[in-house]
Amino acid sequence: MARVLCITLNPALDLAFNLESLVLGSVNRPTSAQLEAAGKGVNVARVLAGLGHDVTVSGFLGADNDAPFELAFTNYSLTDAFVRVPGETRINAKIAEQSGRVTDINGPGMPIDAAHLQTLIDKLNTELSSATPPQAVVVAGSLPPGLSPDDFSALLNHLNASSVPLWVDTSGPALNAAIATHPAGVKPNENELAEWAGEDMTSSDVRLNAAKRLHKSGIANALISAGAEGVLWVNAQGAWHATPPKVTATNTVCAGDTFVAGMLHGLLNQQEAEQTLRFATALSAEAVRHVGVGNPHAADFDSLQQHTRIRRLDDTITEGATL
Amino acid sequence: MARVLCITLNPALDLAFNLESLVLGSVNRPTSAQLEAAGKGVNVARVLAGLGHDVTVSGFLGADNDAPFELAFTNYSLTDAFVRVPGETRINAKIAEQSGRVTDINGPGMPIDAAHLQTLIDKLNTELSSATPPQAVVVAGSLPPGLSPDDFSALLNHLNASSVPLWVDTSGPALNAAIATHPAGVKPNENELAEWAGEDMTSSDVRLNAAKRLHKSGIANALISAGAEGVLWVNAQGAWHATPPKVTATNTVCAGDTFVAGMLHGLLNQQEAEQTLRFATALSAEAVRHVGVGNPHAADFDSLQQHTRIRRLDDTITEGATL
Repeated sequence: MARVLCITLNPALDLAFNLESLVLGSVNRPTSAQLEAAGKGVNVARVLAGLGHDVTVSGFLGADNDAPFELAFTNYSLTDAFVRVPGETRINAKIAEQSGRVTDINGPGMPIDAAHLQTLIDKLNTELSSATPPQAVVVAGSLPPGLSPDDFSALLNHLNASSVPLWVDTSGPALNAAIATHPAGVKPNENELAEWAGEDMTSSDVRLNAAKRLHKSGIANALISAGAEGVLWVNAQGAWHATPPKVTATNTVCAGDTFVAGMLHGLLNQQEAEQTLRFATALSAEAVRHVGVGNPHAADFDSLQQHTRIRRLDDTITEGATL
Repeated sequence: MARVLCITLNPALDLAFNLESLVLGSVNRPTSAQLEAAGKGVNVARVLAGLGHDVTVSGFLGADNDAPFELAFTNYSLTDAFVRVPGETRINAKIAEQSGRVTDINGPGMPIDAAHLQTLIDKLNTELSSATPPQAVVVAGSLPPGLSPDDFSALLNHLNASSVPLWVDTSGPALNAAIATHPAGVKPNENELAEWAGEDMTSSDVRLNAAKRLHKSGIANALISAGAEGVLWVNAQGAWHATPPKVTATNTVCAGDTFVAGMLHGLLNQQEAEQTLRFATALSAEAVRHVGVGNPHAADFDSLQQHTRIRRLDDTITEGATL
């Protein structure tokens, strides 16, 4: 098993309400209300730790409400290397109705300044130069207020300089900044990549072209996810498409994070490409059936893997000649 | 100025989101998100402390997230006598849209057991038997899970036995239980009292009858609020109706708590009945113009008081012969 460092720059406490149905303009009484430490990098970390890896989590946490995070890190066996900044980590409300409709209200996050960023870089340097440095670094999620895409580029360049493979999962201007720094892996979905690609991503051909362009631009593992339509993966060895097994989607919040963790698990264990992609896709499908990250110990996980279809695309796709 | 003890059995952290408009089934990005210590007894305490009284707050708080409360108690100069119980105080989401529509999602609260209740009673006994005991006790808000209306009656009877005037502001079965213990004051609104009264409260005559019945049942100060239609007050000296000044209602959350604090302020300072009711009604009207409790230092507060209409009802009302 490997050592992995998972960084979340703009984590959140998720406040999950379950309701029969939300009545606007009224006082609603949810059947349950749960506050849980969240953040994309923390989700990736949780899956990797559950798969037996030695995972350290870092990023920024508000000092005034870090108790739920500390509890989660203990429960998930994650090593805490988060920088504490004055104030409170944002709280994101997730309102789930009986119908399956989920409404999110995501707060703006805690402002980060140059001194906080330097403290984080110092902390990450300690991790990267330790006797047992991480074998992969993941940076996942949005940027907090105060951290510009340029700051983000500088941070990613610094991490890339360590030559530990860096995977980045983010969106918007942060994604464009990340792609330009040539991390070892990215996994936007079709919507997140549309701005970078400059075109609509609804067609699978367009997505494959975009994945190839991403790879050619200097990203070893270019992945594009498109929900139930599956995932594209282009690397130096070829191109693959995975179609997930049919499941009843209940909650897709952690699907992407679970997928990234599943991919890293396969790559760190030097498994075959097809096996790696099958495992990650099936685990992601497992995750959408419920709240929270995917569980590789689900009773039917073998069946989910068997019903995941992997196609190698190299010889079958002749389009995309402009690449 | 007086010493007052304000008890909140089921406090909450209010998570207030301000949004252009809420889009159901989507990810919404609020313009602001603020977490604030709340609870009806804390609101009453805040107003009283702002008016110069020496206020102690008590009730139950979750030990794991009491930091925002401790900060609020310091900011509002309140003495903290809350019992800490294991776990987290509930978080209530308040979603305010540009249109003025407010949607509340109120969590169920933290379960309280017999041992927690005994700890609270011991703490309250210490307050009541101190060298400078409180001159009034307020119990405001809902009951937490685990605390039955019978438990609530027992607690109120215990407080009543101290002979310090007890005011109770609650609703539902807890209100019925409270009324039966004959506290010195209650202030239900017309909806909250409908169950006890056994009839619809939309008519002002019905409300006056109900207020007189409340008073006759053994409640020294029977108050019924009806929003913009004003407040009825029946006590041993007579009956009054207050009509608030016209204001643009933005947020009515703290109006009732502000009113209770305003009434206690007048009574504790032994002001004339009409002056007491005028001050409380105007302060409550001040509160509905914005988020939070009423501010007696508002630039136009004198004008709000002048535009509050007080009518003495004793000689003008000949109905209600059944009382």
